[in-house]
Amino acid sequence: MTKEQLVEQIKKKQSFLCVGLDVDLDKIPPHLLALDDPIFEFNKQIIDATHHVAVAYKPNIAFYEAYGIKGWQALQKTITYLNEKYPEVFTIADAKRGDIGNTSTRYAKAFFEDLDFDSITVAPYMGSDSVEPFLAFKNKFTIMLALTSNVGGLDFQTLKIDNEALYKKVLKKSLTWQNFENLMYVVGATRPEYFKEIRQIIPNHFLLVPGVGAQGGSLSEVCKYGLNKDIGLLVNSTRGIIYASKGEDFAKKAQEQALELQQEMEEILSL
Amino acid sequence: MTKEQLVEQIKKKQSFLCVGLDVDLDKIPPHLLALDDPIFEFNKQIIDATHHVAVAYKPNIAFYEAYGIKGWQALQKTITYLNEKYPEVFTIADAKRGDIGNTSTRYAKAFFEDLDFDSITVAPYMGSDSVEPFLAFKNKFTIMLALTSNVGGLDFQTLKIDNEALYKKVLKKSLTWQNFENLMYVVGATRPEYFKEIRQIIPNHFLLVPGVGAQGGSLSEVCKYGLNKDIGLLVNSTRGIIYASKGEDFAKKAQEQALELQQEMEEILSL
Repeated sequence: MTKEQLVEQIKKKQSFLCVGLDVDLDKIPPHLLALDDPIFEFNKQIIDATHHVAVAYKPNIAFYEAYGIKGWQALQKTITYLNEKYPEVFTIADAKRGDIGNTSTRYAKAFFEDLDFDSITVAPYMGSDSVEPFLAFKNKFTIMLALTSNVGGLDFQTLKIDNEALYKKVLKKSLTWQNFENLMYVVGATRPEYFKEIRQIIPNHFLLVPGVGAQGGSLSEVCKYGLNKDIGLLVNSTRGIIYASKGEDFAKKAQEQALELQQEMEEILSL
Repeated sequence: MTKEQLVEQIKKKQSFLCVGLDVDLDKIPPHLLALDDPIFEFNKQIIDATHHVAVAYKPNIAFYEAYGIKGWQALQKTITYLNEKYPEVFTIADAKRGDIGNTSTRYAKAFFEDLDFDSITVAPYMGSDSVEPFLAFKNKFTIMLALTSNVGGLDFQTLKIDNEALYKKVLKKSLTWQNFENLMYVVGATRPEYFKEIRQIIPNHFLLVPGVGAQGGSLSEVCKYGLNKDIGLLVNSTRGIIYASKGEDFAKKAQEQALELQQEMEEILSL
């Protein structure tokens, strides 16, 4: 998918909502457990119920790996279903990968080619040659961790180097990498006060923003400084949507929660 | 596996060699490709030929993910084979994972419980609550990236914070985390000049050292400051061993290369 196609979808749906698909068999409706592939069935119903108000889906790969081969099969079926039935939506493999050059290329092929995700999340610690192999793929996006929403995010990311936080060094350095236009960045919603300075460094790139909802981040705070001329935000919600109900009405309840967020977004965009 | 068992094995074999199992179907002997599971068959023969001189095996998970479900099946068979046939060897899932708390727990369960690896590599960028979920597992080890051997390793890891490199901050901070005794660290062999100062911060922890061989690191340089009272090093070699030959003699050639490194190690240990 191109960036233009993503922006077009966002404007059409008046939504920049990303739905996290972190499927935990202990949390999904029990009636699904009798089915052959409860993970896929859960995802399918969530996607069918929310695709008109969400522009992106983000399976966290850990949840699939935790179920071994069955998990991978469910992941494969989920991404195939998304690509075939809803080709307009943007897909994110939340994998947080990163390794030395030839190994990163392996990860990139696995997620961009074999599974055909539009994007993948990566970690920056190993630097340029761990990220550039991902950037080499055309019309694919590499979403690098910048400032994360968890408590430990402050352990290293905000340490000062020559009076500038590490995450800013990471942002600036990444703009020197080959094909940096294929980058997006993870910036947690729990740190809205940082968005202004982040937008000074990367005014044009998309930000993937987790942490709205269960983690306590505020949508309006994020939008205040995060929005750019292309909208430029993908705001993720997971638990608040997919686990809105554990009953047979789970997809309907998920739809209601997603719709509520989409309407908040539409209102913000109309201001 | 306990640390004591690892040290005992190292002393018995007079070796601290780790063999990387990064299986690339384009590089393995072509006669294996006709088999039902060439990846596992390749690993099995390499392991059988080298287990008496190697103390650890390290499959890089990217190479298995790249082959999708078949890759995961081969990984599962490989770790099961290692655990059943050679329970004394230390196993490393080179996965470089890391995510927020509940998600890291998922990865930890996948690699420590389901696959039953002794250890996993993780990335530090997301801080304490991304690593501590791994550390909570008893008799399992979490090998955190500190100073990596690749070119990009210098992009961020050696940036100075209050006159101290980021990787040192990472080392020091990690010693404050719960169950920090279950940590090991990745330090690249291409940076031997750093080992002395690293050992001042973490005198007792094991270091996993990639970069000897193809990447140009020197074993004797690494040992000069890297060894500690428990030996405390696992030096990895991948390409130089597993791809020593593309012929039917590949396992024999791998054995010769591994033996050569083990003998170098034995000599160093005898000094």
